[in-house]
Amino acid sequence: MKRREYSIYIMTTKPSIPKGTRDFLPEETARRNYIFDTIREVYELYGFRSIETPAMENLSTLMGKYGEEGDKLLFKILNSGNFLSDLQPGDINPSHLGHLASVLCEKGLRYDLTVPFARFVVQHREEIKLPFRRYQIQPVWRADRPQKGRYREFYQCDADVVGSDSLLNEVELVEIIDEVFSRLNINVDININNRKLLTAMAERIGAADKITEVTVAIDKLDKIGPEGVEEELRAAGIDEEGIAALRPVIGLQGSNDEKLAAMRSAFGDIPAGAKGLEETEFVLGALSSLGLRSRVTYNPALARGLNYYTGCIFEVKALDTQIGSITGGGRYDNLTGIFGMPGLSGVGISFGADRIYDVLTTLDLFPPETGRTTQLFFVNFGDEAATTRCLKLASAARKAGIRTEVFPDAVKMKKQMAYASALGVRYVAIIGGDELSAGTVTLKDMDRREQQTVGQADLVETVRAGL
Amino acid sequence: MKRREYSIYIMTTKPSIPKGTRDFLPEETARRNYIFDTIREVYELYGFRSIETPAMENLSTLMGKYGEEGDKLLFKILNSGNFLSDLQPGDINPSHLGHLASVLCEKGLRYDLTVPFARFVVQHREEIKLPFRRYQIQPVWRADRPQKGRYREFYQCDADVVGSDSLLNEVELVEIIDEVFSRLNINVDININNRKLLTAMAERIGAADKITEVTVAIDKLDKIGPEGVEEELRAAGIDEEGIAALRPVIGLQGSNDEKLAAMRSAFGDIPAGAKGLEETEFVLGALSSLGLRSRVTYNPALARGLNYYTGCIFEVKALDTQIGSITGGGRYDNLTGIFGMPGLSGVGISFGADRIYDVLTTLDLFPPETGRTTQLFFVNFGDEAATTRCLKLASAARKAGIRTEVFPDAVKMKKQMAYASALGVRYVAIIGGDELSAGTVTLKDMDRREQQTVGQADLVETVRAGL
Repeated sequence: MKRREYSIYIMTTKPSIPKGTRDFLPEETARRNYIFDTIREVYELYGFRSIETPAMENLSTLMGKYGEEGDKLLFKILNSGNFLSDLQPGDINPSHLGHLASVLCEKGLRYDLTVPFARFVVQHREEIKLPFRRYQIQPVWRADRPQKGRYREFYQCDADVVGSDSLLNEVELVEIIDEVFSRLNINVDININNRKLLTAMAERIGAADKITEVTVAIDKLDKIGPEGVEEELRAAGIDEEGIAALRPVIGLQGSNDEKLAAMRSAFGDIPAGAKGLEETEFVLGALSSLGLRSRVTYNPALARGLNYYTGCIFEVKALDTQIGSITGGGRYDNLTGIFGMPGLSGVGISFGADRIYDVLTTLDLFPPETGRTTQLFFVNFGDEAATTRCLKLASAARKAGIRTEVFPDAVKMKKQMAYASALGVRYVAIIGGDELSAGTVTLKDMDRREQQTVGQADLVETVRAGL
Repeated sequence: MKRREYSIYIMTTKPSIPKGTRDFLPEETARRNYIFDTIREVYELYGFRSIETPAMENLSTLMGKYGEEGDKLLFKILNSGNFLSDLQPGDINPSHLGHLASVLCEKGLRYDLTVPFARFVVQHREEIKLPFRRYQIQPVWRADRPQKGRYREFYQCDADVVGSDSLLNEVELVEIIDEVFSRLNINVDININNRKLLTAMAERIGAADKITEVTVAIDKLDKIGPEGVEEELRAAGIDEEGIAALRPVIGLQGSNDEKLAAMRSAFGDIPAGAKGLEETEFVLGALSSLGLRSRVTYNPALARGLNYYTGCIFEVKALDTQIGSITGGGRYDNLTGIFGMPGLSGVGISFGADRIYDVLTTLDLFPPETGRTTQLFFVNFGDEAATTRCLKLASAARKAGIRTEVFPDAVKMKKQMAYASALGVRYVAIIGGDELSAGTVTLKDMDRREQQTVGQADLVETVRAGL
């Protein structure tokens, strides 16, 4: 079936899109834009500026940044023209697919916004001003196995500050999280921790080299419970004494202050622990003086999977539904190092738009106006003079900012009204023969199921006042 | 050099992006968004609703839709996993690269928004309401040879109505063009023609089968002049009698009415010609009664390269600079036919954002506020009480809608002011020791080079009033 004629194949196949990708209908697009616009507005209120990077990056930029597994999940783009030009004998080898792919492909689709951002900062170092506060809302692509809630194309909504060590950045990023979810009417719990405290914990149990395994195990507390975490630690080679030393952390309860005090007595004597506690206390203190609307929880078991984090880390969960992490972030100290610009600290957050969409849908929190496009709709009777009048009135309504549509075809009124209803139009304007000669409009308010006759000269003002 | 270790390669190479692609710095992104937002707002005023489709389409959807040359310009994506699994002996053949690509790749990046839209309409026929007015602003990718003004990734901004034959759609789309360019302050000439008139012309000269060659030749009138067009027609096998019959069209001057009259006497006896003239007259008549701000020119030599157009066609040029076509569109009768849904007429337009950007830059028409992000900037002196006060005032300013930044680090004042200047900040707020104890703020207006002392409680109102 491979050596087919495309044209024949096309004619006989129902059109479809690649698995793991999505079309968005107008209602979904409007709801998604409500989320993106909210995030964008708040980012801009905090002085973050939008940049964009290309969908395609050189594979040399992407490879090796997401681990071996990540390399396999990159979508690679076949070279244009003669893609066999660099092929050497022996390259066609099913057991060295990675090598062959690198011969056939120089470019790949971006896997996240963080690595392209690091590349951007290094490449444009002369053109940007540090500290650089940038936000970026663009799609990324991953060749993950598609499953419920996991897509091969999805948007990330990132904000980062690079070139500043100040903890004020952490404070403001948490404020941004609070503001976004307040605007979206989602009650959230913002979890905060510090990777330095995890370092101290690994040191205490004599497993500084196993910090990854320790954090990965602790990160699963929510999912596998304290016993599960202990099991994982054991499997990672942590001895019983070490596990005992970590037990208070894993099961730590109480207020933020109580937990901080417990952590101080357990790890405050280790320099990394003292530093981590100091940073956490500063951030929590500043936030408490600002009076956020969201709950802020110090969670000593929060680890965040990504290994590049070195300081404060954040993770956000919705309180009224079980949809996992909807936002995360943290500080990293050397993201641009791999592109030849070491010593630049940064801190950032990323909103998970798809999961936020699910939360808003589950809790029915989308504002009713979201997706209501056309506000004023003119029925078309096919009479030329009436149509011209409708076009002119529509033009005036649009100049007044009213989203207006004139039905293009003189089909049955019933069909036109069904169309208007399906779109959720607020006002329907009717100019038939009578109205035309009287200089009036019959105006139906579809929400209130009311009808009135207004002068054509008053139409725009009447509609505007009613919206 | 191909069998390299990626990590080594990375460390020694200055980062770059694939040729023909672009990074957008904050200033450029803001200016681009000014264009996109203007177009989006106008589309929505006319009842168009946004959809989105995935960047990747199945190659079976894309192949064969853009001609043989277009197929070669598609970016193809290497299959995930074992991309050699369907390889057969003989597939590796440099003279059958197209076949080999189809074995290695099932997906490609979209080449335009029109074919994905046709696919979308057919795939979602049960979920959408006809006539369907959709707009779509998304990037497309073409493996064209990069050159000045031509990129491998660029945005298209399309609006289409499908499922309606009414010429009111054409009228409204021209109104949209007029409104967008009025808002952008670009003076334009909107050229209108009808493909049915071109059909009539081909018929008149007995070359109905050569309609493509005839339209392609006429389309070049602007570039190669009347003699060049005649040369091309001759090369396409049109005889001297035929060329003589076309000569009045190619050099036609005068008002729209004069040109229509000349065309009627030359081609009005051919049914396609009569129909084309009737449609053109209707559209021009309706537009003239609506009183557009832009010039609307009937141009009988306008052809538009794309062969799927069947009725009205549009093309827009900026009047005050030579940057070619900045918007185009037209009616097509059977776009969804190839996906198994024949007989659905549509009409659409597409704004060329990159060229519009060039026009706005050349004529210096971007509003000065475009790209001004932060409006209020707090200097940081490192004093904890002052910093907390700044954070609180910043928070209040943001709640009032003022885009506000607190400099995160207590570096030298001069450096902070340089940063604020580079960003084009309007107001700088200073709270040092004196201000802290007096409960005041020193407020610098960077535009007017003025300075005043205001009470902290009055800061937000003072700034808001000044913006």
